[in-house]
Amino acid sequence: MADRAYRKYSALAMVQKLTVKAVLEMGLIEDGDRILIAVSGGKDSTILAVTLSRIRAALKKQYDLKAVHISTDFCSCCKKSVLSERLEKEGVPFDDVFVPVIGRLKEGRKMNCYWCSTQRRLELIRYAQENGFNVIALGHHLDDVIETFFMNMIFKGELCAMPALLRYRKYPLKLIRPLVYVEESRIVEAAAEYGFLKAACSCPYGRFSRRRVIRKKIDLFLDGSSPAKRRVLASLTGRNFDLLKE
Amino acid sequence: MADRAYRKYSALAMVQKLTVKAVLEMGLIEDGDRILIAVSGGKDSTILAVTLSRIRAALKKQYDLKAVHISTDFCSCCKKSVLSERLEKEGVPFDDVFVPVIGRLKEGRKMNCYWCSTQRRLELIRYAQENGFNVIALGHHLDDVIETFFMNMIFKGELCAMPALLRYRKYPLKLIRPLVYVEESRIVEAAAEYGFLKAACSCPYGRFSRRRVIRKKIDLFLDGSSPAKRRVLASLTGRNFDLLKE
Repeated sequence: MADRAYRKYSALAMVQKLTVKAVLEMGLIEDGDRILIAVSGGKDSTILAVTLSRIRAALKKQYDLKAVHISTDFCSCCKKSVLSERLEKEGVPFDDVFVPVIGRLKEGRKMNCYWCSTQRRLELIRYAQENGFNVIALGHHLDDVIETFFMNMIFKGELCAMPALLRYRKYPLKLIRPLVYVEESRIVEAAAEYGFLKAACSCPYGRFSRRRVIRKKIDLFLDGSSPAKRRVLASLTGRNFDLLKE
Repeated sequence: MADRAYRKYSALAMVQKLTVKAVLEMGLIEDGDRILIAVSGGKDSTILAVTLSRIRAALKKQYDLKAVHISTDFCSCCKKSVLSERLEKEGVPFDDVFVPVIGRLKEGRKMNCYWCSTQRRLELIRYAQENGFNVIALGHHLDDVIETFFMNMIFKGELCAMPALLRYRKYPLKLIRPLVYVEESRIVEAAAEYGFLKAACSCPYGRFSRRRVIRKKIDLFLDGSSPAKRRVLASLTGRNFDLLKE
Protein backbone atom coordinates (compact mmCIF):
# COMPACT_ATOMS: atom_id res chain seq x y z
CA MET A 1 0.00 0.00 0.00
CA ALA A 2 2.86 2.32 0.88
CA ASP A 3 4.47 1.39 -2.41
CA ARG A 4 1.25 2.02 -4.29
CA ALA A 5 0.85 5.39 -2.61
CA TYR A 6 4.41 6.25 -3.56
CA ARG A 7 3.86 5.17 -7.15
CA LYS A 8 0.56 7.03 -7.22
CA TYR A 9 2.46 10.21 -6.55
CA SER A 10 5.46 9.71 -8.74
CA ALA A 11 4.38 10.16 -12.38
CA LEU A 12 2.54 13.43 -11.72
CA ALA A 13 5.51 14.60 -9.66
CA MET A 14 7.90 13.73 -12.50
CA VAL A 15 5.74 15.66 -14.99
CA GLN A 16 5.89 18.64 -12.65
CA LYS A 17 9.64 18.33 -12.21
CA LEU A 18 10.29 18.16 -15.96
CA THR A 19 7.87 21.04 -16.61
CA VAL A 20 9.62 23.24 -14.01
CA LYS A 21 12.94 22.33 -15.67
CA ALA A 22 11.67 23.29 -19.15
CA VAL A 23 10.03 26.51 -17.95
CA LEU A 24 13.20 27.64 -16.16
CA GLU A 25 15.72 26.50 -18.78
CA MET A 26 13.81 28.01 -21.68
CA GLY A 27 12.33 31.03 -19.90
CA LEU A 28 8.77 30.06 -20.83
CA ILE A 29 6.93 31.87 -18.01
CA GLU A 30 7.58 35.28 -16.46
CA ASP A 31 6.17 36.88 -13.34
CA GLY A 32 2.79 38.42 -14.00
CA ASP A 33 2.05 36.38 -17.14
CA ARG A 34 -1.61 35.80 -17.96
CA ILE A 35 -1.65 32.33 -19.49
CA LEU A 36 -4.43 30.88 -21.61
CA ILE A 37 -4.25 27.08 -21.75
CA ALA A 38 -5.76 25.45 -24.82
CA VAL A 39 -7.61 22.38 -23.53
CA SER A 40 -9.23 19.69 -25.63
CA GLY A 41 -10.43 17.50 -22.80
CA GLY A 42 -7.69 15.01 -23.64
CA LYS A 43 -4.95 13.84 -21.29
CA ASP A 44 -2.14 16.12 -22.49
CA SER A 45 -3.83 19.49 -22.08
CA THR A 46 -5.58 18.42 -18.87
CA ILE A 47 -2.28 17.35 -17.31
CA LEU A 48 -0.74 20.60 -18.56
CA ALA A 49 -3.43 22.67 -16.82
CA VAL A 50 -3.12 20.68 -13.58
CA THR A 51 0.68 20.94 -13.70
CA LEU A 52 0.83 24.67 -14.42
CA SER A 53 -1.56 25.27 -11.56
CA ARG A 54 0.52 23.22 -9.11
CA ILE A 55 4.07 24.40 -9.92
CA ARG A 56 3.71 28.09 -9.03
CA ALA A 57 5.59 27.62 -5.75
CA ALA A 58 8.39 25.59 -7.37
CA LEU A 59 8.76 28.26 -10.07
CA LYS A 60 8.59 31.10 -7.52
CA LYS A 61 6.44 32.99 -9.99
CA GLN A 62 3.00 34.53 -9.92
CA TYR A 63 0.82 34.04 -12.98
CA ASP A 64 -2.83 33.75 -13.91
CA LEU A 65 -4.28 30.72 -15.65
CA LYS A 66 -7.41 30.16 -17.66
CA ALA A 67 -8.38 27.17 -19.77
CA VAL A 68 -10.28 27.56 -23.02
CA HIS A 69 -11.82 24.79 -25.07
CA ILE A 70 -12.36 25.34 -28.77
CA SER A 71 -15.46 23.49 -29.90
CA THR A 72 -15.89 22.71 -33.57
CA ASP A 73 -18.61 21.24 -35.76
CA PHE A 74 -17.06 17.85 -35.03
CA CYS A 75 -17.80 18.24 -31.30
CA SER A 76 -20.86 16.41 -30.28
CA CYS A 77 -19.64 14.00 -27.68
CA CYS A 78 -17.20 15.89 -25.51
CA LYS A 79 -18.05 16.30 -21.89
CA LYS A 80 -17.45 19.99 -21.29
CA SER A 81 -19.07 19.97 -17.88
CA VAL A 82 -16.67 17.21 -16.73
CA LEU A 83 -13.75 19.20 -18.08
CA SER A 84 -14.94 22.46 -16.57
CA GLU A 85 -15.55 20.93 -13.14
CA ARG A 86 -12.21 19.15 -13.12
CA LEU A 87 -10.24 22.27 -14.02
CA GLU A 88 -12.08 24.58 -11.67
CA LYS A 89 -11.29 22.16 -8.85
CA GLU A 90 -7.63 22.80 -9.71
CA GLY A 91 -8.16 26.55 -9.56
CA VAL A 92 -8.20 26.98 -13.33
CA PRO A 93 -11.29 28.81 -14.65
CA PHE A 94 -12.77 27.40 -17.85
CA ASP A 95 -14.42 28.80 -20.96
CA ASP A 96 -15.70 27.32 -24.20
CA VAL A 97 -15.61 28.92 -27.67
CA PHE A 98 -17.29 27.60 -30.79
CA VAL A 99 -15.56 27.70 -34.18
CA PRO A 100 -17.54 26.45 -37.17
CA VAL A 101 -14.57 24.91 -39.01
CA ILE A 102 -16.74 23.12 -41.54
CA GLY A 103 -18.71 26.33 -42.16
CA ARG A 104 -15.47 28.26 -42.73
CA LEU A 105 -14.25 25.85 -45.36
CA LYS A 106 -14.31 27.48 -48.78
CA GLU A 107 -16.28 25.73 -51.50
CA GLY A 108 -14.42 22.92 -53.20
CA ARG A 109 -11.74 22.72 -50.48
CA LYS A 110 -11.30 19.56 -48.46
CA MET A 111 -10.88 19.49 -44.68
CA ASN A 112 -7.34 18.79 -43.50
CA CYS A 113 -5.63 18.74 -40.10
CA TYR A 114 -3.31 21.62 -40.90
CA TRP A 115 -6.11 23.96 -41.98
CA CYS A 116 -8.39 23.01 -39.08
CA SER A 117 -5.64 23.53 -36.51
CA THR A 118 -4.88 26.96 -38.01
CA GLN A 119 -8.53 27.96 -37.58
CA ARG A 120 -8.50 26.86 -33.96
CA ARG A 121 -5.17 28.64 -33.35
CA LEU A 122 -6.52 31.89 -34.81
CA GLU A 123 -9.51 31.64 -32.50
CA LEU A 124 -7.22 31.13 -29.50
CA ILE A 125 -5.22 34.20 -30.48
CA ARG A 126 -8.40 36.27 -30.84
CA TYR A 127 -9.68 35.07 -27.46
CA ALA A 128 -6.33 35.81 -25.76
CA GLN A 129 -6.21 39.32 -27.16
CA GLU A 130 -9.82 40.14 -26.31
CA ASN A 131 -9.41 38.87 -22.76
CA GLY A 132 -6.00 40.27 -21.83
CA PHE A 133 -3.86 37.12 -22.01
CA ASN A 134 -0.22 37.46 -23.13
CA VAL A 135 0.64 33.74 -23.25
CA ILE A 136 -0.98 30.74 -24.95
CA ALA A 137 0.09 27.37 -23.52
CA LEU A 138 -0.26 24.20 -25.59
CA GLY A 139 -0.07 20.60 -24.35
CA HIS A 140 2.41 19.27 -26.92
CA HIS A 141 4.87 16.84 -25.36
CA LEU A 142 8.27 15.45 -26.35
CA ASP A 143 6.80 12.80 -28.67
CA ASP A 144 4.67 15.43 -30.46
CA VAL A 145 7.73 17.60 -31.04
CA ILE A 146 9.72 14.69 -32.48
CA GLU A 147 6.81 13.52 -34.63
CA THR A 148 6.21 16.96 -36.08
CA PHE A 149 9.91 17.34 -36.85
CA PHE A 150 10.01 14.04 -38.75
CA MET A 151 6.71 14.76 -40.53
CA ASN A 152 8.00 18.13 -41.72
CA MET A 153 11.20 16.49 -42.89
CA ILE A 154 9.76 13.44 -44.60
CA PHE A 155 6.52 14.82 -46.05
CA LYS A 156 7.37 18.50 -46.60
CA GLY A 157 11.16 18.48 -47.08
CA GLU A 158 11.52 21.11 -44.34
CA LEU A 159 13.89 21.23 -41.38
CA CYS A 160 11.48 22.66 -38.88
CA ALA A 161 10.71 21.74 -35.27
CA MET A 162 7.86 22.96 -33.00
CA PRO A 163 9.47 25.55 -30.74
CA ALA A 164 8.96 25.41 -26.97
CA LEU A 165 8.73 29.21 -27.03
CA LEU A 166 7.47 31.29 -29.94
CA ARG A 167 7.02 35.05 -29.79
CA TYR A 168 4.49 36.14 -32.40
CA ARG A 169 5.60 39.05 -34.52
CA LYS A 170 2.06 40.12 -35.41
CA TYR A 171 0.61 39.89 -31.89
CA PRO A 172 1.87 40.84 -28.39
CA LEU A 173 1.68 37.18 -27.51
CA LYS A 174 3.96 34.26 -26.83
CA LEU A 175 3.13 30.63 -27.40
CA ILE A 176 4.67 28.09 -25.01
CA ARG A 177 4.87 24.29 -24.82
CA PRO A 178 5.79 23.56 -21.18
CA LEU A 179 5.52 19.76 -21.61
CA VAL A 180 8.35 19.70 -24.17
CA TYR A 181 10.58 17.56 -21.90
CA VAL A 182 7.83 15.10 -20.99
CA GLU A 183 7.33 11.86 -22.87
CA GLU A 184 3.79 10.84 -23.71
CA SER A 185 4.11 7.58 -21.77
CA ARG A 186 4.72 9.58 -18.61
CA ILE A 187 1.66 11.73 -19.27
CA VAL A 188 -0.38 8.56 -19.70
CA GLU A 189 0.87 7.38 -16.27
CA ALA A 190 0.24 10.78 -14.71
CA ALA A 191 -3.28 10.87 -16.15
CA ALA A 192 -3.99 7.44 -14.69
CA GLU A 193 -2.73 8.58 -11.28
CA TYR A 194 -4.91 11.65 -11.54
CA GLY A 195 -7.95 9.46 -12.21
CA PHE A 196 -8.35 11.05 -15.61
CA LEU A 197 -11.25 10.10 -17.84
CA LYS A 198 -11.17 11.22 -21.42
CA ALA A 199 -13.52 14.14 -22.06
CA ALA A 200 -12.43 15.04 -25.60
CA CYS A 201 -14.25 14.21 -28.80
CA SER A 202 -12.48 12.22 -31.43
CA CYS A 203 -11.96 13.96 -34.70
CA PRO A 204 -13.32 11.82 -37.55
CA TYR A 205 -10.17 12.51 -39.58
CA GLY A 206 -7.72 11.63 -36.80
CA ARG A 207 -7.95 7.92 -37.17
CA PHE A 208 -6.45 8.07 -40.62
CA SER A 209 -3.89 10.77 -39.96
CA ARG A 210 -0.27 10.56 -41.08
CA ARG A 211 0.72 11.29 -37.51
CA ARG A 212 -0.43 7.85 -36.41
CA VAL A 213 1.66 6.24 -39.13
CA ILE A 214 4.76 8.25 -38.31
CA ARG A 215 4.33 7.58 -34.58
CA LYS A 216 4.66 3.84 -35.09
CA LYS A 217 7.59 4.29 -37.43
CA ILE A 218 9.47 6.51 -34.98
CA ASP A 219 8.91 3.91 -32.30
CA LEU A 220 10.57 1.28 -34.49
CA PHE A 221 13.28 3.69 -35.63
CA LEU A 222 14.30 4.65 -32.09
CA ASP A 223 13.53 1.24 -30.55
CA GLY A 224 11.13 3.13 -28.26
CA SER A 225 14.23 4.31 -26.38
CA SER A 226 13.77 7.28 -24.04
CA PRO A 227 17.46 8.29 -24.13
CA ALA A 228 17.34 8.28 -27.96
CA LYS A 229 14.21 10.46 -27.91
CA ARG A 230 15.91 12.86 -25.52
CA ARG A 231 18.94 13.04 -27.81
CA VAL A 232 16.67 13.83 -30.79
CA LEU A 233 15.03 16.58 -28.73
CA ALA A 234 18.45 17.82 -27.62
CA SER A 235 19.53 18.08 -31.25
CA LEU A 236 16.42 20.16 -32.00
CA THR A 237 16.71 22.49 -29.02
CA GLY A 238 20.48 22.90 -29.30
CA ARG A 239 20.86 21.72 -25.71
CA ASN A 240 23.36 19.13 -24.62
CA PHE A 241 21.39 15.98 -23.96
CA ASP A 242 23.06 15.52 -20.58
CA LEU A 243 20.90 18.42 -19.46
CA LEU A 244 17.85 16.39 -20.32
CA LYS A 245 18.81 13.49 -18.10
CA GLU A 246 16.54 13.11 -15.16
CA MET B 1 19.93 -5.86 -77.44
CA ALA B 2 19.06 -2.28 -78.27
CA ASP B 3 17.20 -2.07 -74.98
CA ARG B 4 20.13 -3.57 -73.10
CA ALA B 5 22.51 -1.11 -74.75
CA TYR B 6 20.22 1.72 -73.71
CA ARG B 7 19.99 0.46 -70.15
CA LYS B 8 23.72 -0.13 -70.06
CA TYR B 9 24.22 3.55 -70.64
CA SER B 10 21.50 4.93 -68.42
CA ALA B 11 22.61 4.50 -64.78
CA LEU B 12 26.07 5.98 -65.40
CA ALA B 13 24.45 8.77 -67.42
CA MET B 14 22.01 9.48 -64.58
CA VAL B 15 24.87 9.64 -62.06
CA GLN B 16 26.60 12.13 -64.35
CA LYS B 17 23.43 14.19 -64.78
CA LEU B 18 22.80 14.38 -61.02
CA THR B 19 26.47 15.18 -60.34
CA VAL B 20 26.44 18.03 -62.87
CA LYS B 21 23.25 19.31 -61.21
CA ALA B 22 24.80 19.22 -57.73
CA VAL B 23 28.09 20.80 -58.87
CA LEU B 24 26.27 23.66 -60.61
CA GLU B 25 23.57 24.26 -58.00
CA MET B 26 25.98 24.22 -55.09
CA GLY B 27 29.01 25.75 -56.81
CA LEU B 28 31.22 22.79 -55.92
CA ILE B 29 33.81 23.16 -58.71
CA GLU B 30 35.39 26.29 -60.16
CA ASP B 31 37.50 26.77 -63.25
CA GLY B 32 41.13 25.91 -62.58
CA ASP B 33 40.44 23.77 -59.51
CA ARG B 34 42.96 21.07 -58.71
CA ILE B 35 40.89 18.25 -57.28
CA LEU B 36 42.18 15.37 -55.21
CA ILE B 37 39.72 12.46 -55.13
CA ALA B 38 39.88 10.18 -52.11
CA VAL B 39 39.50 6.66 -53.47
CA SER B 40 39.12 3.49 -51.44
CA GLY B 41 38.75 1.07 -54.32
CA GLY B 42 35.06 0.77 -53.51
CA LYS B 43 32.19 1.57 -55.88
CA ASP B 44 31.34 5.07 -54.61
CA SER B 45 34.74 6.71 -54.95
CA THR B 46 35.50 4.85 -58.20
CA ILE B 47 32.24 6.05 -59.77
CA LEU B 48 33.00 9.54 -58.44
CA ALA B 49 36.41 9.56 -60.15
CA VAL B 50 34.98 8.24 -63.42
CA THR B 51 32.13 10.77 -63.29
CA LEU B 52 34.28 13.81 -62.48
CA SER B 53 36.56 12.86 -65.35
CA ARG B 54 33.68 12.57 -67.83
CA ILE B 55 31.58 15.64 -66.98
CA ARG B 56 34.12 18.37 -67.80
CA ALA B 57 32.37 19.20 -71.08
CA ALA B 58 28.91 19.28 -69.47
CA LEU B 59 30.21 21.57 -66.72
CA LYS B 60 32.12 23.76 -69.20
CA LYS B 61 34.95 23.91 -66.69
CA GLN B 62 38.63 23.03 -66.76
CA TYR B 63 40.01 21.26 -63.72
CA ASP B 64 42.73 18.77 -62.81
CA LEU B 65 42.00 15.45 -61.16
CA LYS B 66 44.14 13.06 -59.18
CA ALA B 67 43.06 10.06 -57.13
CA VAL B 68 44.78 9.16 -53.89
CA HIS B 69 44.30 5.98 -51.91
CA ILE B 70 45.04 6.01 -48.19
CA SER B 71 46.37 2.62 -47.13
CA THR B 72 46.20 1.69 -43.45
CA ASP B 73 47.46 -1.18 -41.34
CA PHE B 74 44.17 -2.92 -42.11
CA CYS B 75 44.99 -2.96 -45.85
CA SER B 76 46.31 -6.27 -46.90
CA CYS B 77 43.91 -7.39 -49.55
CA CYS B 78 43.14 -4.34 -51.68
CA LYS B 79 44.09 -4.48 -55.31
CA LYS B 80 45.84 -1.18 -55.80
CA SER B 81 47.16 -2.13 -59.22
CA VAL B 82 43.59 -2.84 -60.43
CA LEU B 83 42.47 0.49 -59.01
CA SER B 84 45.41 2.38 -60.46
CA GLU B 85 44.99 0.87 -63.92
CA ARG B 86 41.26 1.50 -63.97
CA LEU B 87 41.59 5.15 -62.98
CA GLU B 88 44.49 5.90 -65.30
CA LYS B 89 42.42 4.53 -68.18
CA GLU B 90 39.88 7.25 -67.26
CA GLY B 91 42.61 9.88 -67.33
CA VAL B 92 42.87 10.15 -63.57
CA PRO B 93 46.43 9.69 -62.23
CA PHE B 94 46.71 7.62 -59.07
CA ASP B 95 48.84 7.66 -55.93
CA ASP B 96 48.93 5.64 -52.72
CA VAL B 97 49.80 6.89 -49.22
CA PHE B 98 50.32 4.76 -46.16
CA VAL B 99 48.96 5.83 -42.74
CA PRO B 100 49.76 3.56 -39.80
CA VAL B 101 46.45 4.12 -37.97
CA ILE B 102 47.07 1.32 -35.48
CA GLY B 103 50.58 2.65 -34.80
CA ARG B 104 49.18 6.15 -34.19
CA LEU B 105 46.72 4.94 -31.58
CA LYS B 106 47.73 6.14 -28.11
CA GLU B 107 48.22 3.49 -25.45
CA GLY B 108 45.03 2.35 -23.79
CA ARG B 109 42.80 3.87 -26.53
CA LYS B 110 40.53 1.68 -28.60
CA MET B 111 40.19 1.97 -32.38
CA ASN B 112 36.96 3.58 -33.55
CA CYS B 113 35.59 4.65 -36.94
CA TYR B 114 35.50 8.34 -36.09
CA TRP B 115 39.15 8.47 -34.98
CA CYS B 116 40.39 6.37 -37.90
CA SER B 117 38.55 8.51 -40.44
CA THR B 118 40.02 11.67 -38.87
CA GLN B 119 43.53 10.24 -39.32
CA ARG B 120 42.86 9.47 -42.95
CA ARG B 121 41.29 12.90 -43.51
CA LEU B 122 44.35 14.63 -41.99
CA GLU B 123 46.58 12.66 -44.32
CA LEU B 124 44.48 13.71 -47.32
CA ILE B 125 44.75 17.35 -46.26
CA ARG B 126 48.53 17.03 -45.86
CA TYR B 127 48.85 15.37 -49.29
CA ALA B 128 46.66 18.02 -50.94
CA GLN B 129 48.69 20.86 -49.47
CA GLU B 130 52.05 19.32 -50.31
CA ASN B 131 50.99 18.63 -53.89
CA GLY B 132 49.14 21.83 -54.78
CA PHE B 133 45.53 20.66 -54.67
CA ASN B 134 42.85 23.12 -53.51
CA VAL B 135 39.90 20.68 -53.47
CA ILE B 136 39.34 17.28 -51.84
CA ALA B 137 36.44 15.31 -53.33
CA LEU B 138 34.76 12.55 -51.35
CA GLY B 139 32.44 9.84 -52.65
CA HIS B 140 29.63 10.23 -50.10
CA HIS B 141 26.20 9.86 -51.69
CA LEU B 142 22.66 10.82 -50.71
CA ASP B 143 22.18 7.78 -48.44
CA ASP B 144 25.46 8.52 -46.63
CA VAL B 145 24.36 12.10 -45.98
CA ILE B 146 21.00 10.99 -44.59
CA GLU B 147 22.56 8.24 -42.48
CA THR B 148 25.14 10.56 -40.97
CA PHE B 149 22.44 13.12 -40.16
CA PHE B 150 20.32 10.53 -38.33
CA MET B 151 23.35 9.05 -36.56
CA ASN B 152 24.39 12.48 -35.28
CA MET B 153 20.85 13.11 -34.13
CA ILE B 154 20.11 9.78 -32.49
CA PHE B 155 23.50 8.85 -31.03
CA LYS B 156 25.08 12.27 -30.40
CA GLY B 157 22.08 14.58 -29.91
CA GLU B 158 23.42 16.92 -32.58
CA LEU B 159 21.63 18.51 -35.53
CA CYS B 160 24.43 18.22 -38.02
CA ALA B 161 24.51 17.11 -41.66
CA MET B 162 27.51 16.36 -43.90
CA PRO B 163 27.85 19.45 -46.09
CA ALA B 164 28.19 19.11 -49.87
CA LEU B 165 30.70 21.97 -49.74
CA LEU B 166 32.94 22.79 -46.80
CA ARG B 167 35.59 25.50 -46.87
CA TYR B 168 38.24 24.77 -44.26
CA ARG B 169 39.14 27.71 -42.07
CA LYS B 170 42.58 26.38 -41.18
CA TYR B 171 43.62 25.37 -44.70
CA PRO B 172 43.20 26.96 -48.15
CA LEU B 173 41.13 23.95 -49.14
CA LYS B 174 37.55 23.04 -49.85
CA LEU B 175 35.98 19.67 -49.38
CA ILE B 176 33.24 18.63 -51.81
CA ARG B 177 30.77 15.76 -52.08
CA PRO B 178 29.61 15.82 -55.72
CA LEU B 179 27.49 12.63 -55.39
CA VAL B 180 25.21 14.27 -52.80
CA TYR B 181 22.15 13.98 -55.11
CA VAL B 182 22.84 10.36 -56.08
CA GLU B 183 21.23 7.45 -54.27
CA GLU B 184 23.41 4.48 -53.47
CA SER B 185 21.18 2.12 -55.46
CA ARG B 186 21.94 4.15 -58.58
CA ILE B 187 25.68 3.97 -57.90
CA VAL B 188 25.36 0.19 -57.55
CA GLU B 189 23.68 0.09 -60.98
CA ALA B 190 26.26 2.44 -62.48
CA ALA B 191 29.10 0.33 -61.05
CA ALA B 192 27.57 -2.78 -62.59
CA GLU B 193 27.30 -1.04 -65.96
CA TYR B 194 30.89 0.06 -65.66
CA GLY B 195 31.96 -3.54 -65.04
CA PHE B 196 33.22 -2.60 -61.63
CA LEU B 197 34.94 -5.17 -59.45
CA LYS B 198 35.54 -4.30 -55.82
CA ALA B 199 39.17 -3.45 -55.15
CA ALA B 200 38.83 -2.13 -51.57
CA CYS B 201 39.74 -3.96 -48.41
CA SER B 202 37.09 -4.50 -45.81
CA CYS B 203 37.73 -2.90 -42.48
CA PRO B 204 37.50 -5.49 -39.70
CA TYR B 205 35.38 -3.07 -37.63
CA GLY B 206 32.95 -2.20 -40.41
CA ARG B 207 30.82 -5.27 -40.12
CA PHE B 208 29.70 -4.29 -36.66
CA SER B 209 29.31 -0.58 -37.26
CA ARG B 210 26.32 1.43 -36.12
CA ARG B 211 26.00 2.68 -39.68
CA ARG B 212 24.84 -0.72 -40.85
CA VAL B 213 22.16 -0.76 -38.16
CA ILE B 214 20.93 2.75 -38.92
CA ARG B 215 20.90 2.02 -42.67
CA LYS B 216 18.36 -0.75 -42.24
CA LYS B 217 16.28 1.36 -39.86
CA ILE B 218 16.17 4.30 -42.26
CA ASP B 219 15.05 1.96 -45.00
CA LEU B 220 12.11 0.86 -42.85
CA PHE B 221 11.42 4.40 -41.64
CA LEU B 222 11.23 5.85 -45.16
CA ASP B 223 9.78 2.70 -46.77
CA GLY B 224 12.84 2.78 -49.03
CA SER B 225 11.13 5.66 -50.86
CA SER B 226 13.32 7.77 -53.15
CA PRO B 227 11.02 10.82 -53.00
CA ALA B 228 11.09 10.66 -49.18
CA LYS B 229 14.89 10.48 -49.21
CA ARG B 230 15.03 13.45 -51.55
CA ARG B 231 12.74 15.41 -49.23
CA VAL B 232 15.00 14.58 -46.26
CA LEU B 233 17.99 15.79 -48.28
CA ALA B 234 16.04 18.90 -49.33
CA SER B 235 15.32 19.68 -45.67
CA LEU B 236 19.05 19.39 -44.91
CA THR B 237 20.26 21.47 -47.84
CA GLY B 238 17.51 24.08 -47.51
CA ARG B 239 16.54 23.46 -51.13
CA ASN B 240 13.01 22.95 -52.27
CA PHE B 241 12.65 19.27 -53.02
CA ASP B 242 11.04 19.98 -56.37
CA LEU B 243 14.52 20.99 -57.46
CA LEU B 244 15.71 17.51 -56.67
CA LYS B 245 13.20 15.82 -58.93
CA GLU B 246 14.80 14.22 -61.90
